[in-house]
Amino acid sequence: MPGVSSTWTGNSLQVPALALSAFAVLAGSAAAQDGCAEATGVPAHHMLPANSDTVHWGYFSKGVEPAVFANSGDLITIETLTHHANDDAERMIAGDPGAESVFAWDADGKGVDRRGAGPTDASALGRGSGEGFGVHILTGPVFVCGAEPGDVLEVRILDLRPRPSANPDFAGRTFGSNAAAWWGFHYNDLIEEPAQREVITIYELDATGGLNWAKAAYSYVWTPQTDPYGVVHETIDYPGVPVDHSTVEKKEGVLEGVRVPIRPHFGTMGVAPVEADFVDSIPPGYFGGNIDNWRIGRGGTMYYPVAVEGALLSAGDPHAAQGDSELAGTAIETSMTGVIQVVLHKASDLEGTIVEGLDFPLLETEDEWVVHGFSYANYLEELGEAAQSDIYSKSSIDAAMRDAFRKMRSFLMTAKGLTEDEAVSLMSVGTDFGVTQVVDGNWGVHGVVQKSMFAD
Amino acid sequence: MPGVSSTWTGNSLQVPALALSAFAVLAGSAAAQDGCAEATGVPAHHMLPANSDTVHWGYFSKGVEPAVFANSGDLITIETLTHHANDDAERMIAGDPGAESVFAWDADGKGVDRRGAGPTDASALGRGSGEGFGVHILTGPVFVCGAEPGDVLEVRILDLRPRPSANPDFAGRTFGSNAAAWWGFHYNDLIEEPAQREVITIYELDATGGLNWAKAAYSYVWTPQTDPYGVVHETIDYPGVPVDHSTVEKKEGVLEGVRVPIRPHFGTMGVAPVEADFVDSIPPGYFGGNIDNWRIGRGGTMYYPVAVEGALLSAGDPHAAQGDSELAGTAIETSMTGVIQVVLHKASDLEGTIVEGLDFPLLETEDEWVVHGFSYANYLEELGEAAQSDIYSKSSIDAAMRDAFRKMRSFLMTAKGLTEDEAVSLMSVGTDFGVTQVVDGNWGVHGVVQKSMFAD
Repeated sequence: MPGVSSTWTGNSLQVPALALSAFAVLAGSAAAQDGCAEATGVPAHHMLPANSDTVHWGYFSKGVEPAVFANSGDLITIETLTHHANDDAERMIAGDPGAESVFAWDADGKGVDRRGAGPTDASALGRGSGEGFGVHILTGPVFVCGAEPGDVLEVRILDLRPRPSANPDFAGRTFGSNAAAWWGFHYNDLIEEPAQREVITIYELDATGGLNWAKAAYSYVWTPQTDPYGVVHETIDYPGVPVDHSTVEKKEGVLEGVRVPIRPHFGTMGVAPVEADFVDSIPPGYFGGNIDNWRIGRGGTMYYPVAVEGALLSAGDPHAAQGDSELAGTAIETSMTGVIQVVLHKASDLEGTIVEGLDFPLLETEDEWVVHGFSYANYLEELGEAAQSDIYSKSSIDAAMRDAFRKMRSFLMTAKGLTEDEAVSLMSVGTDFGVTQVVDGNWGVHGVVQKSMFAD
Repeated sequence: MPGVSSTWTGNSLQVPALALSAFAVLAGSAAAQDGCAEATGVPAHHMLPANSDTVHWGYFSKGVEPAVFANSGDLITIETLTHHANDDAERMIAGDPGAESVFAWDADGKGVDRRGAGPTDASALGRGSGEGFGVHILTGPVFVCGAEPGDVLEVRILDLRPRPSANPDFAGRTFGSNAAAWWGFHYNDLIEEPAQREVITIYELDATGGLNWAKAAYSYVWTPQTDPYGVVHETIDYPGVPVDHSTVEKKEGVLEGVRVPIRPHFGTMGVAPVEADFVDSIPPGYFGGNIDNWRIGRGGTMYYPVAVEGALLSAGDPHAAQGDSELAGTAIETSMTGVIQVVLHKASDLEGTIVEGLDFPLLETEDEWVVHGFSYANYLEELGEAAQSDIYSKSSIDAAMRDAFRKMRSFLMTAKGLTEDEAVSLMSVGTDFGVTQVVDGNWGVHGVVQKSMFAD
């Protein structure tokens, strides 16, 4: 893993034997496959904790060494951390060895140096290594043994629960941060002064799952924060900058009496794209990634087209709750732990199945199928060399709706065997299109198909 | 009412005394108010059938004479007809005196001549009177006694049921038409040949309400249809053109086994705008109109800002089912009968209520508040003289999302007393934005607020 300062190696004690062994594997496909155990027919259960050795921060990459090797059918307990934990370190980091190892940062080094797909010498903007071109802490990747380009990876989310605060002062409680940030849809359209302001609202939820709602704890307006390297962050422009609470004014009693329904989900989960070595974690695409659809939660199943050997599945950006559109830029960003099961569908077995020809991330829930459209279905390919910066100037719900329409048609014709005319009529009278997000560069529209419409 | 040929006056027998009396009222506000009965404190129940004397076709207008006068609190049983009934006249018109009077059309005249807000001499395109610039058969208007600009009209939809087929061959059944039409989002993006085609799919549903789903009966591709005046309609370009079924090829067995969930609603309901004398019924706006949100159904309550004296509420475009986006251009277009209650909120009483300052159509359901954003909040005012044509070249979900954001903020701050920062955070983590429609010129995005989030 990149940039682990010797300061923090003590945290490698957190890494169980299986994950550590992953790091002994050399790059290169033959060597990578060597990490695979022989399939026994009995699913193995892997533990994948989140710490500075098992996360990559702000990017997907086909070059990241696997954190775990899994055969089709294996289960993985996967810890994920919110990259907003430093908005209130007392509540979301303190006393939590995994989180502390990831967020560790002093004048001598960082637990995880590279944060984003940008230059590691911060030569572009001076923000820091990786420049924050991509922000999500991603746990993994999971190398799925036998997975090759053209296959489809099914990922079942069997469980997903908030990570309790490790601070004894907050026992039994969990917290999350909502940042109404400069990349939000609202930012240049505010009516109160100052007209451009970033607001952090800390939410609290029940760590035991006994309550199905979150409430706001307090809020503060972002003030310039100086990171341990001395860089001043006027806005929220680099992930994991510790917020000095002596510099902000906390507002209590916000959203009094308001209960936000809990919708635990992975904001970001996906396989490694093939198009570039380091891919900004913010814009979603055919490989999944930062889809930010709150339906990708417990009981949900994702299907991804595999683009590189081993698929290299990573997950992070856990959300306790989010609305369709994620309007202000973030959800209730809350660390969570999931149990997932990976099931590999080989290219040769896809014909006649619902995922034949699948070239986008498809969600299945108990009651629904959900297709994901984006402003660009595959912006990495469509926008050429400058794709990773250009995508941010090409955000469009109109274009995402166009893409969602095409994917819905494709799904109904492939998975349900409809003619084009049948598909078009049905999607007009019986399927729903919603705004997934308007804050991730490659904006999203999802299309929802109710399973109950079909007799078979 | 415009253009009622003497051929069809026999149908005036369908009009009950109360509605007929409305037509004796002269235009002009003093005279209009004269149609109002003294409020007794006991709600009156008015019957408003749909026939050639009680509908206006394809436009809202402050100049249409009231079909009924209602005091605040009165109930109205209102029949509404789908303008697509002539796609299968045997199933949707035959034997139904009200529908026959409206759709009547032979070489000598039409039951309702003007169809649309265009020129009545068809001088623009030669399609026919009104040119089909606006297509919905609207029943009404209801003159709400005492309503003035600045007031808010609440309309409760107490009931809404499909109109049974009057043809004995189809007893107990109801039918609707879905047109995948040239104005659909899919039209220039088809993969099968012919690349541009319009497809009518006739759906069947249970008229008794015993089944909560519709099924497709058959479909056909639109062929050029010659109307009784001899005008050939290459595409679906004028409402109510009788389809000669000997010229189309019916395809049976379409969407076999598929059950479309029933969502009965008014596609179009609204008050008369003040900005123009004849307003195309297709683009929705601040006055409501063709919102095409399937949530505007039984149990729903709409709030409209009143723009002209008497409010002049009309309803039509009934839908048995529709998905969010209405992608192909129409829903399952099915004649239906509703029971509505009108409640007037005077401008002087609005302060401190949820509808203070309301300048858009707001929906309340049992569990939700729904704000309606459009590409242009008030296109009639914003786009100037050519607004009614220009709006079709300015359709944008992006713009509608912008408008929906602002309305959601306004609602949360006004109705729920939140600060702007609270509203922005809550809408990101707890409210949902969806694509209402992408086919009505002034495209729509709706924002949904769950009532259960609020303790009071």
